[in-house]
Amino acid sequence: MRRWNGWGDEAETYPLSEEARRYLEERVGPGEPPADASLEEVTRGIPASRLPDHPLVTADPETRLRRARGQSLPDWIALRSGRVGTVPDGVAFPENDGHVVELLRFAREAGAAVIPYGGGTSVVGHLTPDPEGPPVLSVDLGRLWQLHRLDEESLLASFGAGVRGPDLEAQLRSRGYTLGHYPQSFEYSSLGGWVVTRSKGQQSLGYGRIEDLFAGGRLQAPAGTLHLPPFPASAAGPDLRELVLGSEGRLGLLTEAVVRVRPVPESEAFHGFFFPDFTSGLAAARELAQERLALTMVRLSTPRETETTLRLAGHQELIRLLERLLGLRGLGEGKCMLLVGAAGRPGQVRAAISEARAVVGRHGGVHVGRTFGREWEKNRFRTPYLRNALWETGYAVDTLETAAPWRAVPDLVAAVEVALQSALQPENERVHVFTHLSHVYPDGSNVYVTYVFRLAADPEQNVERWHRLKGAASRAIGARGGTISHQHGVGTDHRPYLEGEKGRLGLEALRSAAGALDPGGMMNPGKLVEP
Amino acid sequence: MRRWNGWGDEAETYPLSEEARRYLEERVGPGEPPADASLEEVTRGIPASRLPDHPLVTADPETRLRRARGQSLPDWIALRSGRVGTVPDGVAFPENDGHVVELLRFAREAGAAVIPYGGGTSVVGHLTPDPEGPPVLSVDLGRLWQLHRLDEESLLASFGAGVRGPDLEAQLRSRGYTLGHYPQSFEYSSLGGWVVTRSKGQQSLGYGRIEDLFAGGRLQAPAGTLHLPPFPASAAGPDLRELVLGSEGRLGLLTEAVVRVRPVPESEAFHGFFFPDFTSGLAAARELAQERLALTMVRLSTPRETETTLRLAGHQELIRLLERLLGLRGLGEGKCMLLVGAAGRPGQVRAAISEARAVVGRHGGVHVGRTFGREWEKNRFRTPYLRNALWETGYAVDTLETAAPWRAVPDLVAAVEVALQSALQPENERVHVFTHLSHVYPDGSNVYVTYVFRLAADPEQNVERWHRLKGAASRAIGARGGTISHQHGVGTDHRPYLEGEKGRLGLEALRSAAGALDPGGMMNPGKLVEP
Repeated sequence: MRRWNGWGDEAETYPLSEEARRYLEERVGPGEPPADASLEEVTRGIPASRLPDHPLVTADPETRLRRARGQSLPDWIALRSGRVGTVPDGVAFPENDGHVVELLRFAREAGAAVIPYGGGTSVVGHLTPDPEGPPVLSVDLGRLWQLHRLDEESLLASFGAGVRGPDLEAQLRSRGYTLGHYPQSFEYSSLGGWVVTRSKGQQSLGYGRIEDLFAGGRLQAPAGTLHLPPFPASAAGPDLRELVLGSEGRLGLLTEAVVRVRPVPESEAFHGFFFPDFTSGLAAARELAQERLALTMVRLSTPRETETTLRLAGHQELIRLLERLLGLRGLGEGKCMLLVGAAGRPGQVRAAISEARAVVGRHGGVHVGRTFGREWEKNRFRTPYLRNALWETGYAVDTLETAAPWRAVPDLVAAVEVALQSALQPENERVHVFTHLSHVYPDGSNVYVTYVFRLAADPEQNVERWHRLKGAASRAIGARGGTISHQHGVGTDHRPYLEGEKGRLGLEALRSAAGALDPGGMMNPGKLVEP
Repeated sequence: MRRWNGWGDEAETYPLSEEARRYLEERVGPGEPPADASLEEVTRGIPASRLPDHPLVTADPETRLRRARGQSLPDWIALRSGRVGTVPDGVAFPENDGHVVELLRFAREAGAAVIPYGGGTSVVGHLTPDPEGPPVLSVDLGRLWQLHRLDEESLLASFGAGVRGPDLEAQLRSRGYTLGHYPQSFEYSSLGGWVVTRSKGQQSLGYGRIEDLFAGGRLQAPAGTLHLPPFPASAAGPDLRELVLGSEGRLGLLTEAVVRVRPVPESEAFHGFFFPDFTSGLAAARELAQERLALTMVRLSTPRETETTLRLAGHQELIRLLERLLGLRGLGEGKCMLLVGAAGRPGQVRAAISEARAVVGRHGGVHVGRTFGREWEKNRFRTPYLRNALWETGYAVDTLETAAPWRAVPDLVAAVEVALQSALQPENERVHVFTHLSHVYPDGSNVYVTYVFRLAADPEQNVERWHRLKGAASRAIGARGGTISHQHGVGTDHRPYLEGEKGRLGLEALRSAAGALDPGGMMNPGKLVEP
């Protein structure tokens, strides 16, 4: 059973080691977990539905509660404390486009808002109902999960857009193909969700971002059906796929998505490297991207993330041995870890890794083999489970991210870290902040920041802490030329900063386009742009 | 001096060989050139400007005539016959954004339409003024041509968007960089024009399409200024760059464009191959794209294009020798030529070509060295000059293009060729049609069709012939799942087919977005979408 107020399956845990607990205690002080509300208690408090009955819609309180929020820190605080605010009035599980069209008709007649639900993994508040809004119908697209067509000649696969990561890959891999889109939320997040939030997979360097992989599909909008034919490229005016990518439910419901797939690579490898400092690591990461080596991943951690990773990894004896060996090569305090991935035929993987080693070597990096790469690979989808353990030890962990041209990256990293570290000073609370670059491009990189702070007993105080942290980081990002989000989307949490990035005119253009597909403003109101 | 009623510089010619003339005579009959109007005669007929005076605007008749049309066949017929229809009432040459803003104000107050003018190389009628519309101000952006900033760390270059191909490359190459965007119109077409028409360069496989190269910039719209910050990637809602890409002047004037550049490659090579038939060539081209080899170009000609190229190439003795040698390998009637390009360090080029040779060999292709590649390279921007010679021998030549998933490509090629070949049967005129694929993708390819037919003495009859041909081809493309344009854009010529591709709702979304930037519908009216 999936956790209703945390990450993942209840049977799965990722306990915090004693070493890790001590490390955090040193960094931010001892934690004290706040009291969680029980599922029974919270379910009992769910108000009656404001929607009329419909055979496709359930008003079951637990079903509604489980689709009320995503996985952002404010979502966690709401669910853990039981102060969940507005929950959907009904949930539907359409099994085909006919159902979706009927649900849109029903919602319009009932004066309801519609919130599309994919995997429920948003970390920026995409799913939060507007507390002042009309009744809410949550449309869970999870039953649109099948591979409908596989064109092996054109490498195009057509899926029900509600398909989740593991089901998508299983259906493709049984036929010898893969999409290769692996966001950390892979276990639950859905293809449609990836598209409408412009999600980036961990290996997007090799497999492409969802913007590259999404070739077309079908969107059911209140004003009608939008068909997006899967052309390899077109000059027939602006690309409507690009309007759907990042539309965050404001235009309609994506029911079908055609994606560009490829044969499963014969082999895959992740190699680890260490640099004496972040500056040399950054120069190497940039060169790896600008040399356009055939890699699937370049992931560089700052010294503090490197230290945190090593402290939280377990295997402390092995780590101490590694550190002694790196010390002999002159790498000590301030060292940075780099992971590099490649996939393809064995010869291609060897060639790519060997070219990467040459670049890394030129920048003073040391190759440490595949152990750290294997460790990362093993835990790539498990890490979110650590959030449960941290919460239960009294710590909140949250992430935020941006992207900018290479020239802006060092300042951006420093400014966001400083903003977060000092945001809770008025309360005398410390914040443990660490950063990595995980998506590099010839012209720039993303910047992915994790921050840990202590939970207060009072949920309001935790929300207040989060607001201070998020605000400080977002202002630092805006001032340093970063985008408000590289891979998480806008949702409710980034909306205050959207106009700063898109401009008044840009938002007006998006608002107008959305109005054409959703004239009544019934789709996910309060997100992205006003109706 | 640039030709006013044909392609290119008057000093440059590309004469038709006697062999080529004979070949065309065999295919479609002897040509008889229609009488051309003189520049003097046509200029004398230009009506007085309907615009009030403005210090930034000239009403000189020849200046206006020279910006009245592009390079489509209907444009040529209009200019050559002297029946040019509506010409702009004034032309402005802004030198900065302040001028552009002032010109938009002037046009609004004068109730005028604004048509942005880049290089005047549109082949689908982007520049044609609406004959029933208001007075027209043509804004020639050619004085916005400078490299403003080069960020060598992020490989980003910021240009005045009116810069033409050769000036753009010269400014970059003197600093060691290149954009690598080479459409056939390179000699005259402009960066801004590439962006707003979604132009594809001949080596887009290696350097990227303009969609990949355009990182951001500034658009001056009637409703204000749209700033597009150059992020490497973003998840902050739909990408507004993608609204500007393909906007065909309907949103405003692009004054600045930031592009992703790269160091000039150390070496570059184009190799030629021949296949026994189109089916095997197509299979090889597909595999080259799907194997994602590090190539810059894959260009496959049908048997008829191969034959036409060989007949029109000159060097007939060498060609006969080649054909004898290919004959010994079993390649005769029906053979197809493939050109493959690679760029980078010499070792990278060798490796890529050697991988390509392996793929080609598996499909029965024969390597013929670099002669044909060098010939193609030498003539890559010269071929349009052949249009002048053909016209003056009595032949019209036109091209059209589409793109589709691989599965649809063979049928699409056949259907478009048949449609064109039979379109003039009611007049008992033959049409010589030949095709190549020049932009391949893992999921599909473009299809680029050239057709030659005889000119009549009467310009109306030539327009009529073109309408029949264009209509027949466009309907065949729509019916076979191709896009109405892969690289030329919509303009006036493809507009009747746009709704078939985008759908009513899609067009409505674009119309609404355009309305936000250009509420009065003054920008290039009659193009893309209604105001």
